[in-house]
Amino acid sequence: MNNHKLSIAKASEGIRQREITPSELLESHLKRIERNEHDIRAWVTVDTDRAREAAARLTEESKQGQFRGPLHGVPVGVKDIYYSAGLRTTMGSPIYSDFIPIKDSAVVSALRDAGAIIIGKTETTDFAYTDPAPTRNPWNLQHTPGGSSSGSAAAVASGMCPLAFGSQTGGSIIRPAAFCGVVGVKPTYDLLSREGVYPLAWSLDHVGFFVRSVLDASLVLGALTGNEMPSLDNPLAEPPRIGLLRGFFQDHADGVVWEGFMESVDELREAGAQVVETPLPDSFSVVHSAHRLIMSSEAASVHQDNFRSRLDDYRRKLRGLVASGLLVPASAYLRAQRIKGLFIEEVRRTLKGLDCLITPSAPTPALLGLESTGDAAFNSPWSLTGFPSITVPSALTKDGLPLGIQLVNLPYQEEVLLRTALWCEEALGSRLWPPDYP
Amino acid sequence: MNNHKLSIAKASEGIRQREITPSELLESHLKRIERNEHDIRAWVTVDTDRAREAAARLTEESKQGQFRGPLHGVPVGVKDIYYSAGLRTTMGSPIYSDFIPIKDSAVVSALRDAGAIIIGKTETTDFAYTDPAPTRNPWNLQHTPGGSSSGSAAAVASGMCPLAFGSQTGGSIIRPAAFCGVVGVKPTYDLLSREGVYPLAWSLDHVGFFVRSVLDASLVLGALTGNEMPSLDNPLAEPPRIGLLRGFFQDHADGVVWEGFMESVDELREAGAQVVETPLPDSFSVVHSAHRLIMSSEAASVHQDNFRSRLDDYRRKLRGLVASGLLVPASAYLRAQRIKGLFIEEVRRTLKGLDCLITPSAPTPALLGLESTGDAAFNSPWSLTGFPSITVPSALTKDGLPLGIQLVNLPYQEEVLLRTALWCEEALGSRLWPPDYP
Repeated sequence: MNNHKLSIAKASEGIRQREITPSELLESHLKRIERNEHDIRAWVTVDTDRAREAAARLTEESKQGQFRGPLHGVPVGVKDIYYSAGLRTTMGSPIYSDFIPIKDSAVVSALRDAGAIIIGKTETTDFAYTDPAPTRNPWNLQHTPGGSSSGSAAAVASGMCPLAFGSQTGGSIIRPAAFCGVVGVKPTYDLLSREGVYPLAWSLDHVGFFVRSVLDASLVLGALTGNEMPSLDNPLAEPPRIGLLRGFFQDHADGVVWEGFMESVDELREAGAQVVETPLPDSFSVVHSAHRLIMSSEAASVHQDNFRSRLDDYRRKLRGLVASGLLVPASAYLRAQRIKGLFIEEVRRTLKGLDCLITPSAPTPALLGLESTGDAAFNSPWSLTGFPSITVPSALTKDGLPLGIQLVNLPYQEEVLLRTALWCEEALGSRLWPPDYP
Repeated sequence: MNNHKLSIAKASEGIRQREITPSELLESHLKRIERNEHDIRAWVTVDTDRAREAAARLTEESKQGQFRGPLHGVPVGVKDIYYSAGLRTTMGSPIYSDFIPIKDSAVVSALRDAGAIIIGKTETTDFAYTDPAPTRNPWNLQHTPGGSSSGSAAAVASGMCPLAFGSQTGGSIIRPAAFCGVVGVKPTYDLLSREGVYPLAWSLDHVGFFVRSVLDASLVLGALTGNEMPSLDNPLAEPPRIGLLRGFFQDHADGVVWEGFMESVDELREAGAQVVETPLPDSFSVVHSAHRLIMSSEAASVHQDNFRSRLDDYRRKLRGLVASGLLVPASAYLRAQRIKGLFIEEVRRTLKGLDCLITPSAPTPALLGLESTGDAAFNSPWSLTGFPSITVPSALTKDGLPLGIQLVNLPYQEEVLLRTALWCEEALGSRLWPPDYP
């Protein structure tokens, strides 16, 4: 019984055809958690009893021929900064260690309505910044899974659930997804509601998720937005036209990463893609400073009260972020917002005539040790702009760590982005399971 | 020949019926300017030649039976912070004294398309803040016309043009309109485009205008937005339900103002309006601080470069605003933005079941002397929220200075607001001309 390896598409079809029940699907994932959680540490809370109740109800519905859609009976992990009614929500911080929300976040509520089963809350770095969570990388327990959505990425990578939600302010979806060899989706800013998700920096915070394939990504996004999304039956009419970004990305990528990336780019070319060398816009040079200024200012605004009363409960990195954010002058913050506007305009022009931009998903593979969750520099420009991005596993390093390609497109062009990602996924043939968690 | 006293509605009907030509209408206004500008000083630039050319073209169109709509042939004054192609635009500052834009602002462009004739650029305080312009109040030359849209208000009040555009960040439309005894309209934030209007504080800056009657206001707003607007043929079905705000407003109003205001409120009641005592929301107490913080921060961001290189060209009040804005921490700015969000929610609840809120349009009548343009405290809460507001002349003080009532409604509820204002205007019977500029 390898039910935990079923894609959402397959599991969903099985439930619709009554070949498997939501309860059976849940049990196989709970078993998987029971066996591997001790190593991986992906979960803050596994809500076994309520998940079983929900599965029983959905099983009953299935028997009566009711089917809520592609998420009917699908177990989901949710990052522990999403409010979940009656279920402890810690934000990864001692300050909220006993906090039990009375209301679901908008996404959790939408997931329940769509028939998904909230299996539990996944590990997050403190308040979704960079002080590490205890989670380990399923590909190698000595390595970080990335962050801040550490538990969600590791849970999906190790088959504990086929879908988990996270958030990205810098690179907190794309990077851990790449480090853990899964598909990570950061949709357009505000496409999925941030309501009830604890903010790190609200003008940069994105709600997104982890799955094991682009097809599953399209099912999830379709279920939550009501839009039609691409399927394998409905691929790109012709091979995509992709803008390759070098400059900063080549300069800052680890040799292993850039080499692996260019091999993947060659594979895409061989499969027929037009890969066009695309210069970075001028304003790219100040984008990381702008991102940092906005993030620190907004985080300081969110945390300033707790920061005074509970300073000792702030770990080193977030403490530095908030402390520096408290010193930013408003005029600098506003200038950073204007740089954002300028960069958005320039990237729009850059994307003319292209189906997407492509870069490596992170400057390194998953780093050794749990101290650092890695570098968000390849992802944060797209968190700043709010443009949708996706990472697709592209290769393994000689050390057996996954690499990913990051694709970026214009706001609300998720459909083109996913079609292009599907095309790349097929061309690279790279759906992977970690060797010790097959 | 009293063509300069024609309302937009009447002038427009005359042009459509070919009883008067755009050129004739323009000449009567140019004559009016020639006669009174020496006293009033409403204009930075009167663009006589190009206005005459435009009028000749529009006259030709009229003769051929072409009619662009209610602004066809209507002379318009535009505050000197609106970019006007080929026409000097000074921002009221020596820094831009020789600046000639190559492009029209969006509103100027829309006005030209609608057949309006740009007669010239009106006086503004330096960069639309509070350092006074040379303009005088047509009701009494010893008194301020208010600011920052000083020239626009005075030009309409003295019959130099039936329509003039201004801007409001604190109270720069409603206050000068009230001081000059004309109708001032500050529509919902961003309903009219700010493109090409020099910012004072962009999240608070509103584009709006001055006319002599609510009917004219509806014609102008309709022409620029393409929406249907109320007309005298289509009044309110029943007398309006109006929320009367006391508290801060009563406490800060001059005795003369509050007395005159309550007399007008009584007249409205007698005419059948339901006037309901409406408490101020809790967050009102911090609204002025929030407004000030946001305004100073954004002004600092706009001016910081010029401020370093041209400090001597900044006058006292704007210098203080920018200097203090440069010291605001981003976290305070962001907290102010959150207070704005809270206040908006509370005012929305306050407005439930009401057609509008009513207050005096300013705490005082037009002040003696030109040093101070008056106090924006009654207007700035609605600039902060972006809610639409309008001032209608309501009475004269014993000293012969106009008073106005300010009506406020929910975003995009301009239609209800104008219908209500029309009803009030009829009930108060208060369309006025200054005695020396009849």
